[in-house]
Amino acid sequence: MTQEDNYAVGKQNSVRQLRDKASYDRELVHRILDTGLVAHVAFVQDGQPLVVPMIHARDGETLYLHGARKARVIRMLAENSKVCINVTLLDGIVLARSAFNSSMNYRSVTVHGVATLIESAQEKLHAMKCISEQLMPGRWDELRAPLEREVKMTGVIAVSIDSAAAKVASGLPEDEEDDYGIPVWAGTLPVVSNSGQLIDDERLQPGVRPSPAVLALQNRRL
Amino acid sequence: MTQEDNYAVGKQNSVRQLRDKASYDRELVHRILDTGLVAHVAFVQDGQPLVVPMIHARDGETLYLHGARKARVIRMLAENSKVCINVTLLDGIVLARSAFNSSMNYRSVTVHGVATLIESAQEKLHAMKCISEQLMPGRWDELRAPLEREVKMTGVIAVSIDSAAAKVASGLPEDEEDDYGIPVWAGTLPVVSNSGQLIDDERLQPGVRPSPAVLALQNRRL
Repeated sequence: MTQEDNYAVGKQNSVRQLRDKASYDRELVHRILDTGLVAHVAFVQDGQPLVVPMIHARDGETLYLHGARKARVIRMLAENSKVCINVTLLDGIVLARSAFNSSMNYRSVTVHGVATLIESAQEKLHAMKCISEQLMPGRWDELRAPLEREVKMTGVIAVSIDSAAAKVASGLPEDEEDDYGIPVWAGTLPVVSNSGQLIDDERLQPGVRPSPAVLALQNRRL
Repeated sequence: MTQEDNYAVGKQNSVRQLRDKASYDRELVHRILDTGLVAHVAFVQDGQPLVVPMIHARDGETLYLHGARKARVIRMLAENSKVCINVTLLDGIVLARSAFNSSMNYRSVTVHGVATLIESAQEKLHAMKCISEQLMPGRWDELRAPLEREVKMTGVIAVSIDSAAAKVASGLPEDEEDDYGIPVWAGTLPVVSNSGQLIDDERLQPGVRPSPAVLALQNRRL
């Protein structure tokens, strides 16, 4: 199956504000989804909006979410299938010469899709692996296999990416032409999320050291 | 007016999952809201869920959000007053001895409230100052005053914090007792967001340096 390079632009995903920052490029959307570690998942429950931060993983045009099988969010997502998911990476603060033109630099993706509760143990296991690998690449194969009861206790939601849009703001301030003469400092302050250094659990078996895959997680830009 | 130390626990904000991580402590909720630079704002539009990342500022029991007055999100928030807002700070990855018990450390707040479009220029200006000071403390007084047309062009939404809950996960893995004997490394990988070093705008007036308030924004844990 060949795919278009861009998501189709429709009522749901069309960006009206700051259109020059919008993109429907599939690769860019995927890259931002794959970089973020937290997805904000919104749905409607009894007419009320709800938004829950969840760990996600992307597999093609599907986003996997998980939680305890009995968790309210899993039950609600199974019942309320329309979802909107946003992943935002904050890149900096833009200090313009006016408060009005000050802003943020960011990479952000919004997805609209349909949530389905996964019943098959095989697909649940696949989703659990995708999520584990998104968070801690290489770790899955180092750990014992999930127990049958752990798979049973896990609720997995698959969300089809029906439409999506990215919005990216980067660079220096854009001030009013009149304001460039004001003798106030202006520029950008980058914001970066990094992983730090591993902290040993208190009950490690003697002589056990982090694997190369785990060591590689340290001191990285996220 | 005296306030209870805790938000009342009701149907909307009661945390069912991982209850030991839940808190309704007003100070903790405020602290997390005040630390985060991005709020995820969810609302319902024509039965569809929408979630939009926005800059926020808290003033007592009100959250201010803003955008272009004509922006779709401002118009929609003005029309769809029920909102749910989440602010999440990611603190680390918890690498347990099983994929099942691996998780994240975080501080997260969910607020339920009612959105109102602010009409008064004075309150709009106050909200703009709150948002500016949340993002760049001390900057407001260094910049020229907002122009009347800038205030007009800005749409401000006030959200009452009607109910709220915090959820905080921290510390080391909690593994199954049976798994502690497995000779695999386990522990925590901290994640930290920091500001970096200021980048000068290309059109600075000669000799203009960042003020102490701006310099103080550098190299900080966010």
